[in-house]
Amino acid sequence: MAVLFLSTPERAQIFREALAKALPEVAFYAGEAPDPAEIRWVVTWTAPDDLAERYPNLRLIFSIGAGIDQFDLARIPPQVGIVRMLAPGIAEQMGEYATMATLAMHRDLPAYLDRQARGEWRAGENLPAARRRVGVMGLGMLGSTVLDRLRPFGFDLAGYSRSPKTIEGVECFTDLSAFLARTDILICLLPLTPETEGVLNADLFAQLPHGARLIHLGRGRQLVTKDLVAALDSGGLSAAMLDVTDPEPLPAGHPLWRHPGVIVTPHIASQTSATEGAAHVVAGISADLRDGVVPGQIDRDKGY
Amino acid sequence: MAVLFLSTPERAQIFREALAKALPEVAFYAGEAPDPAEIRWVVTWTAPDDLAERYPNLRLIFSIGAGIDQFDLARIPPQVGIVRMLAPGIAEQMGEYATMATLAMHRDLPAYLDRQARGEWRAGENLPAARRRVGVMGLGMLGSTVLDRLRPFGFDLAGYSRSPKTIEGVECFTDLSAFLARTDILICLLPLTPETEGVLNADLFAQLPHGARLIHLGRGRQLVTKDLVAALDSGGLSAAMLDVTDPEPLPAGHPLWRHPGVIVTPHIASQTSATEGAAHVVAGISADLRDGVVPGQIDRDKGY
Repeated sequence: MAVLFLSTPERAQIFREALAKALPEVAFYAGEAPDPAEIRWVVTWTAPDDLAERYPNLRLIFSIGAGIDQFDLARIPPQVGIVRMLAPGIAEQMGEYATMATLAMHRDLPAYLDRQARGEWRAGENLPAARRRVGVMGLGMLGSTVLDRLRPFGFDLAGYSRSPKTIEGVECFTDLSAFLARTDILICLLPLTPETEGVLNADLFAQLPHGARLIHLGRGRQLVTKDLVAALDSGGLSAAMLDVTDPEPLPAGHPLWRHPGVIVTPHIASQTSATEGAAHVVAGISADLRDGVVPGQIDRDKGY
Repeated sequence: MAVLFLSTPERAQIFREALAKALPEVAFYAGEAPDPAEIRWVVTWTAPDDLAERYPNLRLIFSIGAGIDQFDLARIPPQVGIVRMLAPGIAEQMGEYATMATLAMHRDLPAYLDRQARGEWRAGENLPAARRRVGVMGLGMLGSTVLDRLRPFGFDLAGYSRSPKTIEGVECFTDLSAFLARTDILICLLPLTPETEGVLNADLFAQLPHGARLIHLGRGRQLVTKDLVAALDSGGLSAAMLDVTDPEPLPAGHPLWRHPGVIVTPHIASQTSATEGAAHVVAGISADLRDGVVPGQIDRDKGY
């Protein structure tokens, strides 16, 4: 009965100690295991195609980062459970970044940075937060933390999700077009699934009010980059802040780096702390050992 | 019994209507008054030197923006009261800007902007907010609103003021050196007085932890620009976000525009809404007419 850990040696050390302390009956192997049949749980970012064949008694794959879209679910046998990373720090960091980005879009930071580059001192007029309609796509743990952080500023808040939600002080939509029509600052926090790939495209941008702003914190492949550039060039969108891109890393010389009105950061909105990640995996294995509900285990039909 | 209004025609119209509605017995003149003896109250940003001689029955000067440091108090007779602008929007906007700036300093936005300019995709490591010590200088209405907005993020918060204060969840200092020694992100919200002119200087920067960050939202003349540049160049400070500069406007070609690690915005952190400003002046004149306490009237000995 063992865990196989496939990540950096620094992280392995933290996970090894947390598991040894909480679950001394579970062996821990980093990199490879002497007896593949012993492996019940794998902690990893990417899964080799033959993972389930190599480890015949595999029960759960734990993702070591936020999101599970890096796994090809079709190649993982249905009896193997997939667990996404749940660590409070992920949501806290996302709340920080999304608030920074929302305030930056609200207060026209990209325009001021552009003027700074030209040495131009020119003030615009501030709009009250109550007149700025912010909309969050994706109302899971990340989306609701982001809305919590934005609430004290007095923005006009809305959220969109496939299934109906109720969040205090937030108008919740399941109708995407109605949600987009009232959204001046759009924050994408959707998981990457076949349905959300390419969802941030020309058709979606055209449904936003003229001059809307985009904050993209989901996955790079949800955004059609050429449609974004066209929307910015036409004025349909007035600014964007992107923490994820397609491809990643964004190559030097890519037009997004230099587009006025666009701020790009290198996928740093949220990082998993190894200590928190280890506690999450300990909790998941403990639950699995007593046949309980594993926190973060996804519904494989929905893909999240 | 009249108000003299010295600002833009657009603002004059809003003030004229608010006063006519609330205080129909008070006459309103924009620009100049037919009978100077009639003027009891002046609403203005700057005061001509001979204001009190020209208007012998002047009782109060209302500043039309935040701050009263633009007035030369020595040239205004002691019987004339000075009233600073109180409008909820000022504090709300300051809360937005200070939170944006604090998160930008916390999440290393200047470094990422610098990498973006070079087309470099390189992630650093996020520090938990609990390990970031944020300190606010100036604990009046603006400082306490800023601390309210920062609280949900879990920063280690402190404040400095000359007189002792108690603010929930904030360590309050009256000892400047002790405050500086524990402050990784310093936010200056002090009013400009003879004591605070030049307060952000090499001696103060040397008391901050190495690599600290500065957010300056007070007045330009509180900051010794060459000391800031020297501290940034030596690494004593690692970044700064400035909404006020000396001089203003910052001329094209000034080194601050181009310094890596510095974000400059053109004094837009907080703008007074004419509607809110008019309501504040109506309340002040009403209080003065019944010999009550005028909201925002300063203590002329302290200068704020």
